[in-house]
Amino acid sequence: MSGVVNVNRISLNQITTENWSLREAIDGCVRNEIPTISVWRHKISEVGLKESKKMIKESGLGVSSVCRGGMFPALTASERVQRIDDNKRAIEEAAELGTDVLVLVCGAAPDKNLPESRKWVQEGIETLIPFAEQHKVKLGIEPLHPMYAADRSVITTLGEANALQNSLASSQVGVIVDVFHVWWDPFLYQEIENARGNILGFHVSDWKVPLPDIFKGRSMMGDGVIEIPRIRQAVEENDYHGPIEVEIINQDIWDMPGDETLKLMKKSFVEHV
Amino acid sequence: MSGVVNVNRISLNQITTENWSLREAIDGCVRNEIPTISVWRHKISEVGLKESKKMIKESGLGVSSVCRGGMFPALTASERVQRIDDNKRAIEEAAELGTDVLVLVCGAAPDKNLPESRKWVQEGIETLIPFAEQHKVKLGIEPLHPMYAADRSVITTLGEANALQNSLASSQVGVIVDVFHVWWDPFLYQEIENARGNILGFHVSDWKVPLPDIFKGRSMMGDGVIEIPRIRQAVEENDYHGPIEVEIINQDIWDMPGDETLKLMKKSFVEHV
Repeated sequence: MSGVVNVNRISLNQITTENWSLREAIDGCVRNEIPTISVWRHKISEVGLKESKKMIKESGLGVSSVCRGGMFPALTASERVQRIDDNKRAIEEAAELGTDVLVLVCGAAPDKNLPESRKWVQEGIETLIPFAEQHKVKLGIEPLHPMYAADRSVITTLGEANALQNSLASSQVGVIVDVFHVWWDPFLYQEIENARGNILGFHVSDWKVPLPDIFKGRSMMGDGVIEIPRIRQAVEENDYHGPIEVEIINQDIWDMPGDETLKLMKKSFVEHV
Repeated sequence: MSGVVNVNRISLNQITTENWSLREAIDGCVRNEIPTISVWRHKISEVGLKESKKMIKESGLGVSSVCRGGMFPALTASERVQRIDDNKRAIEEAAELGTDVLVLVCGAAPDKNLPESRKWVQEGIETLIPFAEQHKVKLGIEPLHPMYAADRSVITTLGEANALQNSLASSQVGVIVDVFHVWWDPFLYQEIENARGNILGFHVSDWKVPLPDIFKGRSMMGDGVIEIPRIRQAVEENDYHGPIEVEIINQDIWDMPGDETLKLMKKSFVEHV
């Protein structure tokens, strides 16, 4: 535990500079002395995996994670098999890019049936474990805010993510703590303790009032109500000392010149994380 | 438990016809054979308590609840005392209007400190119990969706509301189940069981994807993803057989002529609740 965050733990989650290509994001990180990046798959596919790997390797940047796998629930068995295949591609991409973390956004209930969808999520992750192990990539279950339960993830709390991790009983599976999704939870600190040893990532942004949007609702650290340092310290006390991704989905921030975003994000990181 | 809802259980939560005065809402209910109404305090204050009481009495409508008390957390002790006083007025209004339920929207954290605010909520309700008992009004803790944790309620799940109810250990305090706020929760059905005997109200609307707005985000029953009949049946199995309030905060619905809203709401109630 430390009262002040080490700025070298900062990682650019690439969605924060959504208008930048992977090339631009890599160059931006290098220019702004951000040592680590989290890469999104739609950006990889724009240039191809081989070129992505080459660019990252030449830049010297670390890769904190690939975003994202998951989206397991689907109405037909064949669709669910397709989702598994797609997750295998994501695991391969993570391995190729030199990260051992694939972030999972687990998926929503396609037909209102939450318990069924939660079962599909569990089955999906279980199926992937041997493949993930082979590729030395861990699967990070990221609980999403309950307001995304209808369209993005039926896994809505860190408690649920921990329960899922426990039931799968594999060191190949862990959890991701993103302050935007979990800050409101009265069991947060208890569940961070329960996640001890299984925390694969820590993501920061802020919850501004009023929320600017539902999907594009995140704000720069310090602009909202989340007690980020307290959550960071809890995560550190429970043995996560890895990169801290700044992941901000926000149209106004996307519309800023990327270098300004990176400068602002570093400043906010030092002051508010 | 019943597979089909009894239409006579429908109650107009007055916020659904926000553009109507209390007079208009009462007349609308009578015209549309809606036997029960839930009255909001800002509508009472427009005409005064005495006149409100007279209008309701003459109409023959039942009153399912008064909305709303709560909002306990505040930064200074004197502000918190003012909030308590305001809640006492709300209890008096509920008693005068002939309902035994005051809905509590508990309030947010004024200074980011969620545990402190939860303590203030508990203290606030505790302070009110003797006054509520005297007036034969029960206090219904309504957990709000976690997306309102920053500005409306630090009580975000039915589990929290039950824990609060248990710790207060008073039959004067119960919980309100509103499907919009709780549908996503993996512990929902378990917590409805835990609430057995303490359920003071059941509210319906729907969660449409994409959500039209954060505050004005609710939709007509049937237009979203919530398994309303399943939740209704769970609530019935756990001994709630009282009025079912249709509570929809939605600009498009507010902009409809009130009588159309009431007709649509009755139809949706029969088909989707």
